[in-house]
Amino acid sequence: MKKLAFDERGFTFDGKPGFLVSGEFHYFRVPEEDWARRMDLFKEAGGNALATYVPWLIHEPEEGTILFDRGEKRDLQGFLELCREKELLVLLRPGPYQYSELVNDGLPTWLIRNYPVIRATDPAGKPFRDESVSYLHPLFLEKARKYYKAFAGVVRPYMASNGGPVAMLQTDNELSGIHMWFSGPDYNPETMGFGKEDGRYASFLRGKYGSVKALNAAHGTAWTSFGEAKPEREDGASFFSARRRKDYYDFYFSTVAEYSALLASWMREDGLTGPICHNSANPRENPRFRETVERMGKDFLLGSDHYYNLDATWAQNSPTPQYALKILLGNEMLRAFGMPPTVLEMPGGSPSDTPPILKEDLLACYMTNLALGLKGVNYYVYTGGPNYPGTGNTADIYDYNAHIRADGSKNETYGALFAFGRFLTEHAWLARSRRAASVNIGFEWEGIRSIDCDCEKLSYGGGKAGKLLERGWLYALMCSACAPAMTLLTEELDPELPLVVPVSGALSEAAQKNILSFVEKGGKLILTPVIPDRDQEFRPADLLSPLFGGAVFKKSGKTLRALFAEGVGCVYGMNAVTEAEALPPDAEVLARDADGGAVFVFRRPFGKGQAVFFGADFMMTSFTQPVFLESLLARLGAKKTAFSENRNIFTSLLEDGEGRRMLFLMNLYSGRQRTSVRVTRGGEVLIEDIELEPMETKAIEL
Amino acid sequence: MKKLAFDERGFTFDGKPGFLVSGEFHYFRVPEEDWARRMDLFKEAGGNALATYVPWLIHEPEEGTILFDRGEKRDLQGFLELCREKELLVLLRPGPYQYSELVNDGLPTWLIRNYPVIRATDPAGKPFRDESVSYLHPLFLEKARKYYKAFAGVVRPYMASNGGPVAMLQTDNELSGIHMWFSGPDYNPETMGFGKEDGRYASFLRGKYGSVKALNAAHGTAWTSFGEAKPEREDGASFFSARRRKDYYDFYFSTVAEYSALLASWMREDGLTGPICHNSANPRENPRFRETVERMGKDFLLGSDHYYNLDATWAQNSPTPQYALKILLGNEMLRAFGMPPTVLEMPGGSPSDTPPILKEDLLACYMTNLALGLKGVNYYVYTGGPNYPGTGNTADIYDYNAHIRADGSKNETYGALFAFGRFLTEHAWLARSRRAASVNIGFEWEGIRSIDCDCEKLSYGGGKAGKLLERGWLYALMCSACAPAMTLLTEELDPELPLVVPVSGALSEAAQKNILSFVEKGGKLILTPVIPDRDQEFRPADLLSPLFGGAVFKKSGKTLRALFAEGVGCVYGMNAVTEAEALPPDAEVLARDADGGAVFVFRRPFGKGQAVFFGADFMMTSFTQPVFLESLLARLGAKKTAFSENRNIFTSLLEDGEGRRMLFLMNLYSGRQRTSVRVTRGGEVLIEDIELEPMETKAIEL
Repeated sequence: MKKLAFDERGFTFDGKPGFLVSGEFHYFRVPEEDWARRMDLFKEAGGNALATYVPWLIHEPEEGTILFDRGEKRDLQGFLELCREKELLVLLRPGPYQYSELVNDGLPTWLIRNYPVIRATDPAGKPFRDESVSYLHPLFLEKARKYYKAFAGVVRPYMASNGGPVAMLQTDNELSGIHMWFSGPDYNPETMGFGKEDGRYASFLRGKYGSVKALNAAHGTAWTSFGEAKPEREDGASFFSARRRKDYYDFYFSTVAEYSALLASWMREDGLTGPICHNSANPRENPRFRETVERMGKDFLLGSDHYYNLDATWAQNSPTPQYALKILLGNEMLRAFGMPPTVLEMPGGSPSDTPPILKEDLLACYMTNLALGLKGVNYYVYTGGPNYPGTGNTADIYDYNAHIRADGSKNETYGALFAFGRFLTEHAWLARSRRAASVNIGFEWEGIRSIDCDCEKLSYGGGKAGKLLERGWLYALMCSACAPAMTLLTEELDPELPLVVPVSGALSEAAQKNILSFVEKGGKLILTPVIPDRDQEFRPADLLSPLFGGAVFKKSGKTLRALFAEGVGCVYGMNAVTEAEALPPDAEVLARDADGGAVFVFRRPFGKGQAVFFGADFMMTSFTQPVFLESLLARLGAKKTAFSENRNIFTSLLEDGEGRRMLFLMNLYSGRQRTSVRVTRGGEVLIEDIELEPMETKAIEL
Repeated sequence: MKKLAFDERGFTFDGKPGFLVSGEFHYFRVPEEDWARRMDLFKEAGGNALATYVPWLIHEPEEGTILFDRGEKRDLQGFLELCREKELLVLLRPGPYQYSELVNDGLPTWLIRNYPVIRATDPAGKPFRDESVSYLHPLFLEKARKYYKAFAGVVRPYMASNGGPVAMLQTDNELSGIHMWFSGPDYNPETMGFGKEDGRYASFLRGKYGSVKALNAAHGTAWTSFGEAKPEREDGASFFSARRRKDYYDFYFSTVAEYSALLASWMREDGLTGPICHNSANPRENPRFRETVERMGKDFLLGSDHYYNLDATWAQNSPTPQYALKILLGNEMLRAFGMPPTVLEMPGGSPSDTPPILKEDLLACYMTNLALGLKGVNYYVYTGGPNYPGTGNTADIYDYNAHIRADGSKNETYGALFAFGRFLTEHAWLARSRRAASVNIGFEWEGIRSIDCDCEKLSYGGGKAGKLLERGWLYALMCSACAPAMTLLTEELDPELPLVVPVSGALSEAAQKNILSFVEKGGKLILTPVIPDRDQEFRPADLLSPLFGGAVFKKSGKTLRALFAEGVGCVYGMNAVTEAEALPPDAEVLARDADGGAVFVFRRPFGKGQAVFFGADFMMTSFTQPVFLESLLARLGAKKTAFSENRNIFTSLLEDGEGRRMLFLMNLYSGRQRTSVRVTRGGEVLIEDIELEPMETKAIEL
């Protein structure tokens, strides 16, 4: 078997770059007699790996009876042997959770029924859902440990280190989902240890604050010991409340990391080596895994799941530009974690019969993910089959409208799988390519996470700042000639690219210092739409004002009809946030209220660099917005990437750094569109009057 | 000019049936020299009318200076004269509100700036938005009255009654929107007269309750007079709170009706005769106009606005099945009001540059509206032009990506307008057609309105019941062979069609009695998912239990994997709401918990009819749901309409009652789909293996 490895730029197989192309293939569903044929069909479509859950529900039907007995629907070993024979690498996902449209989300029924004490709870200690357990509850861990041990015993001989096909293991599944989707963080008193000096929560607070006095000063509380501290559901209406809430979220995500690390340690104890991965349920949830990534250390792969529709309640039925933005955001965050962007669950179908998953939509989805940086993919699911009786919660036949149907027939969508696989094979150089960018959007995990735990008192809320980043700047730049990348504000900042920083009123001191030093040394900055005056803990911290040399700002109450920018004209759809009332003499005004004249955008030299303040926020609506941003970025020395005359066609340019370039054009709409495109980056190329079918992402090698 | 008239079935022109095909054409934007050519282009595309706002903002730029002086961008008279010459009927919409992407939503700036007292407020008396005024505030009415009088003076000679083109007038615009979208009902103390015995609110309560004692008993209050009663923002957590909230909403909507009637009375006083109309902003808001429809009486047309996307924050970028369901819901509610379904604003473009409005999407949107009952349409906007300087809030050139661009060039989307217009002309018989149905879904205005003011204490909330109606039953039936229609539960119920009643725990006594008598006389009923035990005022009222002859029900706490129905098999995606614990001897079980055996669906004879209780709710996800409903309805004698083998293709059958039939097939997705269709209603026809393009609604005359 080939040796799988990865770094920030992508995957390698025996050291040779390539895409990870995996298909979810449930040995506990697919009829055994058809395994070989379906594996061959997957390899024909360019696949090199398979993934499967190993459901506790199915392998321990009664407590204490753990069956890896090669029985029907339980023959994991037979599956792994056949994978070795077929030279398909394997990703195993032993839970404890699977979800996977199994009853109890894949946990054994006896566990759910007989041990209610393990359930996750709300702050009052009340369970909110039978199937949602508290990850670190000792009784739950005791039960799970036995299952993990049995699993390890079976799997060990099949590990890559032992010449087997199992190249990667996953801890649990879409962590935090079963809590956050239904209630919020888990407050199980036993797990969190409320009331105990050595409890998890007390230890977290002690680690963070050192003294109870410091804790009380931060939280506005009057505890006499750490053990006494007990969280409530906070509304974030005061800085105290917001800090208490944020601390609880940080604490909760640290317990998620602890749980993941614990599962990994069990694997190690039981002799399972090699990379371990985890799948964030949704690109926007990637920041929840900051503690997990830190704690898991080397040889850990964080990927995310990129569904566009799982039922009629989703906002969109097909991949759309809004979907593409979410994917770009997610992939850029994975890169910031040092990961090759990997889609651990890429739609292969849907558990719902409606909306249907259509081949045009699927191919556009795959190509769009590639255009936006994908390096590895696992289709969920490639193929299904009959559920073990009584274990399916959406159907008894788990067809999923997958590429290969439950009955073994080829779905129309197999064509999309095949076409995409062939494309990856024929353009293998893309496996190490990078997405070209003209501008960096700076962010920090704190900022994106504040969508979960905002502070109402900030001059501009974290939730609003997150939207401004995604639906304002990222969107408008995707409609412009200046392709955006994203960068962590606490890491070294690329001096070649202008840096846009959409912020709330809170930004860590580290980030503020880093930005200041970036501009000092020659960097070009756009700060918007406020000057942060608090740090990530909501303590006063205003390090960035000096950039603007004594300018006086005020919160604007204006309803803007438009901004007016010299040389550009009116810019519509902008909302006033911060006006500059008095400017330093060296400031250059770049945009004013088109009617009143108040200044909203200006720039000023600072150190060897330049700083632009941009006091308006916006959602992408009018093309005057990207036109204005292009002009602004040009003043800051940004170099264009590629420009689509029809701004509703997103572009993305992948480069290998040695002169190879692939241009992607995305028509993520249900009607035909035309455009002409001028590529600037890496040598000018003009592509004139090109027609794109509905839902077409076209790739053009330049 | 032809005389326009309408009744429940549609429009007539000089007594001859036809579609109303109107285009929004702003004389205050479109360059005068191009009016004639653009009008001709509209007529070529099948148009027979134009509509325009008459913006107060533009005609009274300074208080007291009302200009209908034929100045540039103000030449309403010239516009009307040309319409007469071109034989185009005209719908005039003089506000006071226009919205229309004008600053201040179309109100004069002096009015907004100088009279803050007229602003609508929250319950604490605080205005929530400068541009949102209190409709019945005396000072606002005083100002508006003058403008209306000046408008009437200009328009009178052009009224249809005087041989002119003006066939219809509209009161205000999307009433309640400027309050409800930003805050909630208006609580302006002056308008509502809080604290006054003869105030509007006191009078409403007096009219409803007669005595303060009765009011206090209903509201759980201790007022000593009606005048003392003052509303708060209610959470609906108790029956008292819910009744107070509901009364306030009912009261507020009665003030909206009063305002609309007042504007109409001004028109009449000033000699403007003929039909008056109003546009509900959204199909789901149609029930807000119950009081308005009652109060406006004869010759009043309520239509609604049917946008599918106005910017990237909308849930969908193109018309989708979810859009079609909303349209069907809206059109059926208009029919229930006795109106011909009229789309007073049908998308002609969008104020946002992105998402783009594409020709395929537009044509699918128009054809889908037709398939679902449309009888009249006004495209918003057919064409635009430069805004009067400083009056546009989205752009200075109001292009709107409309059929005819601001610069006069033909947009690609003109093709959709033209194709649809030609289709209507070539199939003029459809103007009096009716949509065939196999089953009626019963509703009452109270039920749908409870989405606005729900009671948390009900056994099943009104919000949930509304979703069950639209996303459960309506959706599943559109995926079935049994086409759904809707009927008011307080009107005579069609004995030929089975009646499905998705309800909350509250249903008016009138509706309960009507249902009981319907079944008694031989009707077939499906009641779901609870037996209502409160009336519309949340007072105890349980008239429907007798239908089920002593069956004992209990609230179910089960997580259902599936229901099992004999002859059908497993039905997935169902949620347990009510179980029947004990059944009368004459009950026939129709579905049980597939695992546990508890009864969720059963039927029983009652009087000359039959009653089915259906104790589960669902959102449409699995095709086993429509299969089950088809089987259930077949048992109740429902006759199929048309069956699409691919259930993701919605069908609709229009009939003229004299043997003409038109079948519509809707592929509201971004990929190609195939199906075969069997039409049953009116004689069997089989259409085999038909391919539908992405976003295609195909019409086939049978």
